[in-house]
Amino acid sequence: MPVKNKKLARGVSLVGAGMSKFGSFPEKSSRDLFVEAFQVMSNSVDKEFDPQRIEYVCIGNFSSDLFEGQSHTAPIMADAVGLVPKAAVRVEDACASSGVALRQGILGIASGLYDIVLVGGIEMMTKLPTSEVTDTLAAAGDVLYEIPVGFTFPGFYAAMASAYMDRYGAAPEDLMQVALKNHNNGALNEKAQFGVTIPDWMEKRKQSAEKKGKPIPEWNDEMDFLHDDRANPMIAWPLRLFDCSPITDGAAAALLVADDIAKEFTDQPLKIIGSGQASDYPLHDRSDLTSIGAAKLAAQEAYQMAGVTAKDIQLAEVHDCFTIAEVIASEDLGFFEPGKGFNQAEKGITTRDGALPINTSGGLKAKGHPVGASGIGQVVEIFKQLRGRAGERQIKGDPKLGLAHNVGATGQTCVVHIFQREE
Amino acid sequence: MPVKNKKLARGVSLVGAGMSKFGSFPEKSSRDLFVEAFQVMSNSVDKEFDPQRIEYVCIGNFSSDLFEGQSHTAPIMADAVGLVPKAAVRVEDACASSGVALRQGILGIASGLYDIVLVGGIEMMTKLPTSEVTDTLAAAGDVLYEIPVGFTFPGFYAAMASAYMDRYGAAPEDLMQVALKNHNNGALNEKAQFGVTIPDWMEKRKQSAEKKGKPIPEWNDEMDFLHDDRANPMIAWPLRLFDCSPITDGAAAALLVADDIAKEFTDQPLKIIGSGQASDYPLHDRSDLTSIGAAKLAAQEAYQMAGVTAKDIQLAEVHDCFTIAEVIASEDLGFFEPGKGFNQAEKGITTRDGALPINTSGGLKAKGHPVGASGIGQVVEIFKQLRGRAGERQIKGDPKLGLAHNVGATGQTCVVHIFQREE
Repeated sequence: MPVKNKKLARGVSLVGAGMSKFGSFPEKSSRDLFVEAFQVMSNSVDKEFDPQRIEYVCIGNFSSDLFEGQSHTAPIMADAVGLVPKAAVRVEDACASSGVALRQGILGIASGLYDIVLVGGIEMMTKLPTSEVTDTLAAAGDVLYEIPVGFTFPGFYAAMASAYMDRYGAAPEDLMQVALKNHNNGALNEKAQFGVTIPDWMEKRKQSAEKKGKPIPEWNDEMDFLHDDRANPMIAWPLRLFDCSPITDGAAAALLVADDIAKEFTDQPLKIIGSGQASDYPLHDRSDLTSIGAAKLAAQEAYQMAGVTAKDIQLAEVHDCFTIAEVIASEDLGFFEPGKGFNQAEKGITTRDGALPINTSGGLKAKGHPVGASGIGQVVEIFKQLRGRAGERQIKGDPKLGLAHNVGATGQTCVVHIFQREE
Repeated sequence: MPVKNKKLARGVSLVGAGMSKFGSFPEKSSRDLFVEAFQVMSNSVDKEFDPQRIEYVCIGNFSSDLFEGQSHTAPIMADAVGLVPKAAVRVEDACASSGVALRQGILGIASGLYDIVLVGGIEMMTKLPTSEVTDTLAAAGDVLYEIPVGFTFPGFYAAMASAYMDRYGAAPEDLMQVALKNHNNGALNEKAQFGVTIPDWMEKRKQSAEKKGKPIPEWNDEMDFLHDDRANPMIAWPLRLFDCSPITDGAAAALLVADDIAKEFTDQPLKIIGSGQASDYPLHDRSDLTSIGAAKLAAQEAYQMAGVTAKDIQLAEVHDCFTIAEVIASEDLGFFEPGKGFNQAEKGITTRDGALPINTSGGLKAKGHPVGASGIGQVVEIFKQLRGRAGERQIKGDPKLGLAHNVGATGQTCVVHIFQREE
């Protein structure tokens, strides 16, 4: 289906972005995390900023209903950050919820109704036992046709990985290189759930066990992270533990304003020059498991709106809920030809110092994946990198053009945004 | 807080609206009901209409997560009506979810991004036992501060009713007049869950019991519907059974298009001339229980955008989840002074042949309240009445201006829309 070339009636800029620490916070509720994200976001606005100027709050959240027994979360979040009686809306598109919230915020400004919009995302996942989290996430599949036959999300993505490996000759070890790269990045991100490289993580785990007087019997320096089930247990073949993003609590927030007032907030706004969104069938109903149709269409819409191509993008945050997802994303977005994405981390192309850095934040893989917050979490990294404020993990080359790619479930939703720093 | 006078960058018209039968459908899922609503909506479009022209799907749904174990409902609904790969978004603001979906659809068109948008609402509530439905709905309250002390929604609205009666001298019998009126309307609505007047309902129940050879012992012609616990059990004082809207399965859909193409779809489009939305604190944190602040602000925004006042409105569908809610709504919307709304049904002002008919569809009270679908369900009635196609319940006076008022939970969200038939 050809994508209509779409234009917004009014331009939108990003002038603030921030996130809570991602991790496990049993003593907190999602409103606590959202307050934290909101404060970090507010502090990221360079010039003096009165939060009461915010007119509209759009919150992405997958299922506080199931995770916390709390629905109608949008006005609760608005209240938590002092924004009652502003209009407050929750949007849900599974793990793409806050990428979609970003897009809804853009529509709100482009419509002429609002000038200043807070978009955010929240998810508090660790209040449930892990097995129930898996079942809860499965609600994002098709509960009539997929879940009753035993699928969970590791299974869905394992099916995609198997199909991909079969078609293109990739190996599980190639996928694990994505995990190694993203943990290398996450190790430099103080907000990441796993702020540690995989080798360091293994070493720490070994030391900790020894310190407690309970050394892991088979643990030795020769244990092979790539192949050994003791170091890196198999979850759903070919995906091992470190192919999977973790269960995470977290929140993120961003401030959108009409282009014409952006300089009131910062001398370094990012223009949101492209936005695309599309849907797809549930996985069981698709003709191809090695690509996500919604991602290709969303990218096409965003590129057309932005007037750029994949070759122009200088860094990207893509939805690596599993390692295979980053590989497929990098192909769907047009960065690499189909079947050529799987060894780009290994080749150093997508590493921090590579030609096209992907997931410099650590990605969902190392930074964590509080599902409803992940889309805006990606925006936080783009906001830092394109403004030269990513600290130790700042990429070279003074990047001006970045892309965020956020997927819901197995790809029934995908949303893509392109950000540009103006000179 | 003064409401900023807001204008949309681009006008939006309503050219189609339809709903499924509302009721209890244990053999169906919400996607079945949405397909039914979509088909009725499609048939309501006067001229030839290719559904593939729809570019964007925005679905209101409170919690298919909790009711059906299914989240990520938007792409599933898009798939069910053949609209993959169009962008599909679920919005949630409790019982205001589809009123808010309508507003999001409007923003989508006003933004310039879309010309043709499907908005809808779904809820499948009867798969759970009634006690669990009550608990599930309670998730729309504040689960940290309100629900643990024992509040459920009948309790919330009973608190509002008590405060109202105390302040203004209204009696429970006044509230019940709203129920009588709305059931009189619902009796003429073939889509209503309770398509029967209350006296007829009582007579039928009596006859049915006798027919089964199990007559209700105390049931006699003198039993007083207004006061007798056998005919009309107390739920939460002062609210009896017939003060409460039912538990309902249902779906509704509406077609929005840019003003400039509306005549391609019908010679009788309705312009959406006003849209307003606001948030409020959870009930426990409000200074006044006899009015909903978000409703007053949303109405003010909608009236200002439309350039009309409450006096210009010729019919309204308001959110009567409980009888007291209609009374408060009619005051918050400016139809009646505070404290003067409670006997307007009794006085015949808000009846079908009154000066300001309210809830001619039967309202949530008699038509049913599938919470995520109720907002668009209201739009279906406005669409019929303003185009002179409401059949037996068509109001007099060739009305041109109608209003829909949709509330989330106890009023943490309210959204108001104003529709106008052009000559």
